[in-house]
Amino acid sequence: MVLANENYIKLSDSHYIEDIEKRVNAYKILHPNEKIYRIGAISPSLPLPLDAVKSMQRAVEDLSTINEFRGYGPAQGYDFLIDKILKEYRSNFAVSFEKECVFVSSGSTTDLANITNIVSSDNIVAIADTIDPAYENTTVLNGHAGKLKNGKWSNLVYLQCNESTNFLPQLPTERVDVIFLSNPNNVTGTAIKRSDLKRWVDYAAENESLIIYDASFQAFIKDENIPGSIYEIKGAKKVAIEIRSFSKDASFAAVRCGFTIVPNELQACTFGGKYVPINRLWKKLIQNYTNGVSYISQRGAEALFTRKSKTEISELVNYYMINASLIREELNAMGYRVFGGQNSPYIWFKIPNSNTSWKFFLHLLHDLGIVGTPGIVFGPENDRYMRFSGYCNRNDLIAALKIMKNNF
Amino acid sequence: MVLANENYIKLSDSHYIEDIEKRVNAYKILHPNEKIYRIGAISPSLPLPLDAVKSMQRAVEDLSTINEFRGYGPAQGYDFLIDKILKEYRSNFAVSFEKECVFVSSGSTTDLANITNIVSSDNIVAIADTIDPAYENTTVLNGHAGKLKNGKWSNLVYLQCNESTNFLPQLPTERVDVIFLSNPNNVTGTAIKRSDLKRWVDYAAENESLIIYDASFQAFIKDENIPGSIYEIKGAKKVAIEIRSFSKDASFAAVRCGFTIVPNELQACTFGGKYVPINRLWKKLIQNYTNGVSYISQRGAEALFTRKSKTEISELVNYYMINASLIREELNAMGYRVFGGQNSPYIWFKIPNSNTSWKFFLHLLHDLGIVGTPGIVFGPENDRYMRFSGYCNRNDLIAALKIMKNNF
Repeated sequence: MVLANENYIKLSDSHYIEDIEKRVNAYKILHPNEKIYRIGAISPSLPLPLDAVKSMQRAVEDLSTINEFRGYGPAQGYDFLIDKILKEYRSNFAVSFEKECVFVSSGSTTDLANITNIVSSDNIVAIADTIDPAYENTTVLNGHAGKLKNGKWSNLVYLQCNESTNFLPQLPTERVDVIFLSNPNNVTGTAIKRSDLKRWVDYAAENESLIIYDASFQAFIKDENIPGSIYEIKGAKKVAIEIRSFSKDASFAAVRCGFTIVPNELQACTFGGKYVPINRLWKKLIQNYTNGVSYISQRGAEALFTRKSKTEISELVNYYMINASLIREELNAMGYRVFGGQNSPYIWFKIPNSNTSWKFFLHLLHDLGIVGTPGIVFGPENDRYMRFSGYCNRNDLIAALKIMKNNF
Repeated sequence: MVLANENYIKLSDSHYIEDIEKRVNAYKILHPNEKIYRIGAISPSLPLPLDAVKSMQRAVEDLSTINEFRGYGPAQGYDFLIDKILKEYRSNFAVSFEKECVFVSSGSTTDLANITNIVSSDNIVAIADTIDPAYENTTVLNGHAGKLKNGKWSNLVYLQCNESTNFLPQLPTERVDVIFLSNPNNVTGTAIKRSDLKRWVDYAAENESLIIYDASFQAFIKDENIPGSIYEIKGAKKVAIEIRSFSKDASFAAVRCGFTIVPNELQACTFGGKYVPINRLWKKLIQNYTNGVSYISQRGAEALFTRKSKTEISELVNYYMINASLIREELNAMGYRVFGGQNSPYIWFKIPNSNTSWKFFLHLLHDLGIVGTPGIVFGPENDRYMRFSGYCNRNDLIAALKIMKNNF
């Protein structure tokens, strides 16, 4: 008899994007002619850099000719893209890796989900209290969690990350083996400074822990005290995997391409007490669970490293960051407590009048036609918060902020 | 301290494609000017159907415009592709599914690898004795296997599939919970007839087992007694997941797109004795481990269902199948025992003179410049076999077969 994997039973079905869309669709049916202002998006709204478009057009053409046609590509990614990534790390972060440390991915989601599969389910995984639910969900599915009680899983360690800490995660107070860090934080937009990140690297070195560092929003960092890569910190190669995305800055959400760096210096221990390179474990996963990433997507990603693309990407980032500033200013002027939006497109703020976040969400939607993201989807402790995002149309945003101002 | 997942320790590092390429590269260095005849390929050598090329060009263009730009797509795939798949199943196999039963994938590899993650590690998994090693490897990584002894894992059930059974897998003689079937077989090219497949469906219904049916090579079926889909068999919706690829027939290996059908009728049991839809478990995996498949690849796949593409795909398949016939004829004429090649591009044959398969491989490579696939990479019991493939250039193949004929 087929038995279900119990980890898949204990994790609830809900998916917050769907929960939001259901409510938006219900509103649309009731108010078919009303304008809706979407200022809660999680990915760019502007088109791809032109060189990436051209490069993907050429890649499609390659596959249409006998001479340039390709079958299965290397599981780990093509050298043409890996070389560009290595060069960027050398020039931007003054850090070198061997080729085999870079793994091209179909976006960061899959790698972030798979990563806790290569470590023992006996390992204790630590997750910031306020962080994208994907880390927690996949850690549960991968068998690292115990039971759910009051919205928290036993066996997982939750790192304090709330208003009292300025939404910056605090170091574990107990020993943990694996730590998810997202910097800038992919929920609140807050960011850990270089000097603070050093304390995490030191903690991991001391406890032989592994940091899984999600740097998907690194292109949005404006403050020079915030590191663009964890490898800017001395010793990080021995403790950290870094996961990167092209979706958040270069509009690649529909293209599906990112990369993961697994340094050769990282080690895990076997039950028999031997050390093995984590790179080898991850390579085994990639070789067995994928057949490489789309050649077309990889050619697109390669073209993101041209001078022209870099200019276009910083223009895209600036557009979203100006939006974020407008949101910050307006919410500040309205007297809200505001976080993020300075090194991230996300603005996280406290809901006035002690409303719950779904109640506030529905108020914004039904009374003002504005769609944000209710904090509760990022954990029960965030039910007094709401998120807006700079990933929106400037004119819509200005109109939405005006409506809010006139109604609060 | 980070502990490795022991399943990743116990599975060996080797990957057969790399093992072959290493030997070919060594030969190339020694003989830089010698022609090499590659007749062991695992994917098409001819370009994409033209409509798929055009459709992907348009998709790339979509992402370059403000109006058509897209961010994250639906995790399960776009309706435009799912609708085409559903229509194909209705017209080709007279079977209907609800939309939510189709999951667009980045190719069959990932889905075949992930599928045993949604069932309990207590479940007994059965794998044909001669089958692609990917099934066995990922079943081990997913925690279903015990210890390795003489090339076989305890806790896995190996289904007899050798010369005495004409390389057709035999029904389990003990109770098993999950069964991998590949039809036509992705190693030997042999195929299970409709009447025999019915016995598998009946077995699964009786034992409440789940069949994972890999139909990647269905486009190559010429014999009308061989089913193109397991859902041609009555009752299969209650026992089988079907996995499909666009790589093997439509030259999509570098594009990365396929699909998986998980009928609503499939059920798994929880430890608490309740039944849950397997579709819901799989949806949970897809929603948490992916962020959808490349929009460009999905637009390419959509265009494979035009009348023009269908004609082009059958021309591609015919080209490879004529190659397969040439191989069969020549090997038969040389007195070899030959399997497959009639409903599959793969030809599986017994090596003469009791050579081992690596020895024969090296003989073909070094003495004749011919590259095939040694049987041992598909399990130790296949060390007296070799595989050739119709995925090659016709002229090269004719030259290679002439060389073989003159040398044996």
